[in-house]
Amino acid sequence: MTASRLVLEPTGDLVALTRALCDLPSVSGDEAAIADAIEVALRRYPHLEVLRDGAAVVARTRLGRSARVVVAGHLDTVPIAGNLPTTLTGAGAGAQLWGRGTVDMKGGVAIQVALAAALTAPTRDVTWVFYDNEEVAADRSGLGRIAGNHPDWLAADFAVLCEPSDAGIEGGCNGTLRVEVRVPGVAAHSARSWLGTNAIHGAAEVLRRLAAYVAADVEVDGLVYREGMNAVLVRGGVATNVIPDECVVTVNYRFAPSRSVAAATAHVRELFAGFEVTVTDAASGARPGLGAPAAADFAAAVLARTGGRPAPKLGWTDVARFAALGIPAVNFGPGDPLLAHTDDEHCAVRQLHLCYDALRSWLTT
Amino acid sequence: MTASRLVLEPTGDLVALTRALCDLPSVSGDEAAIADAIEVALRRYPHLEVLRDGAAVVARTRLGRSARVVVAGHLDTVPIAGNLPTTLTGAGAGAQLWGRGTVDMKGGVAIQVALAAALTAPTRDVTWVFYDNEEVAADRSGLGRIAGNHPDWLAADFAVLCEPSDAGIEGGCNGTLRVEVRVPGVAAHSARSWLGTNAIHGAAEVLRRLAAYVAADVEVDGLVYREGMNAVLVRGGVATNVIPDECVVTVNYRFAPSRSVAAATAHVRELFAGFEVTVTDAASGARPGLGAPAAADFAAAVLARTGGRPAPKLGWTDVARFAALGIPAVNFGPGDPLLAHTDDEHCAVRQLHLCYDALRSWLTT
Repeated sequence: MTASRLVLEPTGDLVALTRALCDLPSVSGDEAAIADAIEVALRRYPHLEVLRDGAAVVARTRLGRSARVVVAGHLDTVPIAGNLPTTLTGAGAGAQLWGRGTVDMKGGVAIQVALAAALTAPTRDVTWVFYDNEEVAADRSGLGRIAGNHPDWLAADFAVLCEPSDAGIEGGCNGTLRVEVRVPGVAAHSARSWLGTNAIHGAAEVLRRLAAYVAADVEVDGLVYREGMNAVLVRGGVATNVIPDECVVTVNYRFAPSRSVAAATAHVRELFAGFEVTVTDAASGARPGLGAPAAADFAAAVLARTGGRPAPKLGWTDVARFAALGIPAVNFGPGDPLLAHTDDEHCAVRQLHLCYDALRSWLTT
Repeated sequence: MTASRLVLEPTGDLVALTRALCDLPSVSGDEAAIADAIEVALRRYPHLEVLRDGAAVVARTRLGRSARVVVAGHLDTVPIAGNLPTTLTGAGAGAQLWGRGTVDMKGGVAIQVALAAALTAPTRDVTWVFYDNEEVAADRSGLGRIAGNHPDWLAADFAVLCEPSDAGIEGGCNGTLRVEVRVPGVAAHSARSWLGTNAIHGAAEVLRRLAAYVAADVEVDGLVYREGMNAVLVRGGVATNVIPDECVVTVNYRFAPSRSVAAATAHVRELFAGFEVTVTDAASGARPGLGAPAAADFAAAVLARTGGRPAPKLGWTDVARFAALGIPAVNFGPGDPLLAHTDDEHCAVRQLHLCYDALRSWLTT
């Protein structure tokens, strides 16, 4: 099958639809073909208004309902690793779908496509959002681009992001901050080391504070967010006979959504008092937002279908972009997030159906 | 002037000879032209037997004296840094010769060439050794190659290496040992850091021991050698969202010549007990060897000419190769060793003459 000939059958078998979406490689930056296929498939349905921006597709009902919800997912994957085309193992309750994208997040996208086609008269107006470039630097994000170009396309009372969450609601997300802690030194030949100042030895105190740091568990709107403060990179030294004149420790702080970026930055600066700290990357977290009426209804629908209670999301996801737009948002999708990006990425077929059913139930009752 | 036309005048002006040797670029691996020039120049003197091995030249008297000494120097330099051709500043006692090689070690080589030509009947037989590839990995050393191919060429009771020593005798040298101290960890996404084990945090203890280490001063044969124990490189982490699964600290131990490599290795392993330690590079030091009769005479001649008493050499030099051959050896040459390899490398002209005079005095009385 070539990209130009991919024809999606939104109302057919959900597993077949998921496989078709996975088998069309769509690594970040190369999502045009999959966006084309989704756009063509959804334009067949007169209850949907279909919009396009680059490799992003938006399809929405215009029923004049009192509430509107966004259900969103990204089209791109991380690079494939010899794990396409997909394979199916087992049967019945034990069936598993293997391959790149089965978890992150073509299962969620397949559910969106299928429900967008099937739900001609949802009880809430729905905006189905399919976007590009989620797995790369934030400034390339298709969702960010839409928010800039067409903010009205994202207007909603609540958003569900179909990121893998093991078919349970994961609310909000931690924020993330990266800083470089720089320790200076004075270079010298290592045969005359006393003429220099060893920057790597100076970094001992930075690592000591990190090793001694006890990360907090922070309750936000009833969910407990576990934080983390970690060195992720360390670099120092230029040659094996030179006393190093610089050592840089890159630290990643994952912080609860009740803290602002400014508060998180102040906390890190306090931790490394006495050292030069440079912020290189920062993104706010998102509060779980489960107090919103649409969110409470959604949580009830999921609880009824899956038995799952909301849990905190620990990694950063695009729910934070919705939070920044003032739209409460949660993650809810098939697949174990720990398997995302792994070479043995695979998803339980049962979760595809569970998530489909829960969303359908919520949007039809 | 092209390389093929360089004609040396061994018995002319010493500064002009030094400049000619500097101005012919001879970065390690590219010493053939300078070796040719020295070979051609010295073959004119019937009191010398001239031998050649690759880009190394050996010229020796065969007078049947009761003692034989080696006077040796390397022909290569580290890469030039826009600091050639040489320039001369000042005059009289303040004259300075600037440029790559003026310190390390074309001044010493010029003195060797000049004295080899001038001393037709030295009081000791002399073997003048000019060799290639000193500034690179030890296994490329021209001196090591000669020791392997023609051990008889190096036979002697004592050796002087004309490395820069500020015109004072520097005896022996420290040994050097490099090890990698590896701290393992367990990778995880930094959003779920508690699932991993942070190798960089684990390295805090390695750096703590290094920062707390107090290097020893060790007296050997009357000279005090200052040791050093330093991290020279640290590397850890693979990405800014991954808990690092490995951190490697490269440590350079400079140890007094009274310690063997085995003893130095044991000391480092003890210091980093509990961590994986891999030796990557080791070279013995050399005791000063000033007890040998030829060495004592030499020290007296230098003291008389320059007023300088022997001092310990701290960096590793090829005196350790002579020590390994059972030949006591010292460093003695013009130029401040702290200026070696620097962009503003320069040598006091006065030291060229001082060293020439001291060696001439020793070899003629």
